[in-house]
Amino acid sequence: MRIDHVAIAVNNLDDAVKEYQAALGIHEVEFETVETEGVRVAILHLDNSRIELMEATKETSPIKKFLATKGEGLHHIALETDGIDGEVNRMKECGIKFLGDVRPGSRGTKITFIHPKSLHGVLAELCSHPQ
Amino acid sequence: MRIDHVAIAVNNLDDAVKEYQAALGIHEVEFETVETEGVRVAILHLDNSRIELMEATKETSPIKKFLATKGEGLHHIALETDGIDGEVNRMKECGIKFLGDVRPGSRGTKITFIHPKSLHGVLAELCSHPQ
Repeated sequence: MRIDHVAIAVNNLDDAVKEYQAALGIHEVEFETVETEGVRVAILHLDNSRIELMEATKETSPIKKFLATKGEGLHHIALETDGIDGEVNRMKECGIKFLGDVRPGSRGTKITFIHPKSLHGVLAELCSHPQ
Repeated sequence: MRIDHVAIAVNNLDDAVKEYQAALGIHEVEFETVETEGVRVAILHLDNSRIELMEATKETSPIKKFLATKGEGLHHIALETDGIDGEVNRMKECGIKFLGDVRPGSRGTKITFIHPKSLHGVLAELCSHPQ
């Protein structure tokens, strides 16, 4: 299991990207929109993982509520596993609760989210990349 | 630059460690106490990085206030760089603010913290491991 990325909720993605790029000395950035999750994402590649900055694409985006109640900041960590379905089954046997079933993410990934109540307040995405 | 670890504030370290170990399927865990930062830490090694669970060691610990106001959850990310002093100087030229000077961390590391106001609400540790 590895840390695939750390996701940060921001109010204005373009502003945040410029500031993170300057702070971290990172020139390249990729953008993508994940309509199913209601987010537009900027991906900053580090040597061993990624930082993903996220803004809401609509009023009903889950991160819109997060931003309204908690403000900008760390939103979730994403943990990558080779076999997401097996991991989910194993975790469910340990009593771990999930937010939704395993579903398609962007770029052929499969994702689900572990409920923060199962990880001491931490929202964790579980993901598998395509083989 | 790499993600050295993701740090999570918890009320009771021993309880949290057991639950994270079960959830993530991780058997080995290391404990350490960093008195200068007022924390006791459990380190869970992932393939490319670490998760660090932290509890306060005293009433004046900074994370005690964090737990009282925000509750358990994601506390900070730690970014590793080969040369922390040069990075701090470069970042200061970009207008980044810091919480304290570069100082000794645990196990020969050098650490400082970037102010959350400089990273859209994210507290980030900057660290260098001994050569």
